[in-house]
Amino acid sequence: MPLSPSQVQPFHGARTLITGGLGFIGANLAARLVDLGANVLLVDSLIPEYGGNLFNVEPIRDKVQVNISDVRDEHSMRSLIQGQDYLFNLAGQTSHMDSMQDPQTDMEINCRAQLSILEACRKYNPGVKIVFASTRQIYGKPDYLPVDEKHLLRPVDVNGINKMAGEWYHVLYNNVYGIRACALRLTNTYGPRMRVKDARQTFLGIWIKQVLQNAPFEVWDGHQLRDFTYVDDAVDALLLSAASEAANGQAYNLGGAGHLSLTQLADALIAANGGKGEYAVKSFPADRKRIDIGDYYADDRLIARQLGWKPRTDLRTALTRTLEYYRAEWRHYL
Amino acid sequence: MPLSPSQVQPFHGARTLITGGLGFIGANLAARLVDLGANVLLVDSLIPEYGGNLFNVEPIRDKVQVNISDVRDEHSMRSLIQGQDYLFNLAGQTSHMDSMQDPQTDMEINCRAQLSILEACRKYNPGVKIVFASTRQIYGKPDYLPVDEKHLLRPVDVNGINKMAGEWYHVLYNNVYGIRACALRLTNTYGPRMRVKDARQTFLGIWIKQVLQNAPFEVWDGHQLRDFTYVDDAVDALLLSAASEAANGQAYNLGGAGHLSLTQLADALIAANGGKGEYAVKSFPADRKRIDIGDYYADDRLIARQLGWKPRTDLRTALTRTLEYYRAEWRHYL
Repeated sequence: MPLSPSQVQPFHGARTLITGGLGFIGANLAARLVDLGANVLLVDSLIPEYGGNLFNVEPIRDKVQVNISDVRDEHSMRSLIQGQDYLFNLAGQTSHMDSMQDPQTDMEINCRAQLSILEACRKYNPGVKIVFASTRQIYGKPDYLPVDEKHLLRPVDVNGINKMAGEWYHVLYNNVYGIRACALRLTNTYGPRMRVKDARQTFLGIWIKQVLQNAPFEVWDGHQLRDFTYVDDAVDALLLSAASEAANGQAYNLGGAGHLSLTQLADALIAANGGKGEYAVKSFPADRKRIDIGDYYADDRLIARQLGWKPRTDLRTALTRTLEYYRAEWRHYL
Repeated sequence: MPLSPSQVQPFHGARTLITGGLGFIGANLAARLVDLGANVLLVDSLIPEYGGNLFNVEPIRDKVQVNISDVRDEHSMRSLIQGQDYLFNLAGQTSHMDSMQDPQTDMEINCRAQLSILEACRKYNPGVKIVFASTRQIYGKPDYLPVDEKHLLRPVDVNGINKMAGEWYHVLYNNVYGIRACALRLTNTYGPRMRVKDARQTFLGIWIKQVLQNAPFEVWDGHQLRDFTYVDDAVDALLLSAASEAANGQAYNLGGAGHLSLTQLADALIAANGGKGEYAVKSFPADRKRIDIGDYYADDRLIARQLGWKPRTDLRTALTRTLEYYRAEWRHYL
């Protein structure tokens, strides 16, 4: 069921800023906001290793404003933030491995830039509403499943630590300064416009690339349980939490339509590809194994209860749509 | 009961580096390490607003090496860290109010510098053992009392968020890279050599100053429960956790000899001052109220069980010694 008219009404004519707006989730959100009649400003650094891709907004290119700059650039952010009604704060370094190899850059983006964005809001636009893209990675290895928001945060990589701090800065500025902010702890999000040239956003990207190139893909271990959110469902959650005052100060888990093992997901991907494709189960590379979190899936009943969010796209449909997208737009993603 | 010979034996002849070594806890630790026969190198930035004070090491001045530099200075830290057996990593920005007024500086010191120290250890001295000074502030407002280490971390100020990240970097480098590290979550620590010219380290500093100047001091609210660790007991904990392999990867609460309300503490301070002194109970200033954590006292049974730590100084003795120290050395602390 799509969002109701009253749930999307606030965005009509609203001034919205999306950091990471040329990235996977940002671009999907932008398309939806354009549909809803919002004024959309996209900020993205287009760092080649990250998720930004100008082609992601090709269909809405003349309906949005694009500003190429980096969230670490305090001056540009201070200027861009002003006058916005909503800030969807999605820009981030997302690679766990990169965060271990270059922890300072991860900290610059996921900690320092977040603080300076919030300071800019406090000084120049305290009325803005902020939704921050956090991650399930901050939980680390779960003590129990499904993981709810009361679970201890025990991140197992530098990215998890910095995202945890970034999330808390948002909650803090909400609680102390009344700058309305909330966070969504995203799990594996997938769908059209994700980065598929490598595994920097999610391993599913590289799987899709291999399947479409008729090449076998690698499944590491294969037994781990995970949940997956289709990007349209993640966009629903972003809009609902932006529109709701009940969300202020909250951090919500997002889950998916059930959870499954990685080999089950691999089988589902091949099924969605008309049965074509193959994979090999491998053991974990050592540098990944030591930051792996084992089984994870979310208890997302808090956002269901408070905001009425529910994933509405089943896995088969979602994988099929994703493969269709990349088949059509292949050359823009390699 | 003092530490046993086997507990302090590892420090004889050991090369030890203390960041924040001219500060309150650092200088007390340095004196003990000198007694134990360690080679002691103190690093301190002597930023006027922080706790560093050259007078703190006056009695051991010719038995330690002092290097004035800042933990944010990657180059000096990279050089100083090399060849050390133990790193007592105590340097930090500790003022909650300062962290709200200048969040970036707090982040530079409590996040960025910690990451670069750990990276330096990883690259140039992976065999070092690190003890990090964390804080009970990372818990935020307790859900239950006493607070044990399983309590959720929900910091209520920027300092708490950054210290949380700093603590987790240490645990992470222990877990992922095998660089032995642990953290102590300190509560209000007090005793000789603390900063008393203002309330930047703890409100108790300013109370002591006022009492010794025969001026009334202010108690805000007064009902809040707190625990207090005498600095000699904190030094015990630092040594025990440095010497123990069981501590690696752990974060331990430190408590004190019981807990009491702030008015009870005020009364105890006046009693320790021979009955001289007075105070006025005031309501919280608004900017402090919004980052106050309410009642707090620690469950410190984990470190008791694992390392055999126990506070061994009672409140009356500790307050008396503290007042004696400042009466004698007054002019060096104003």
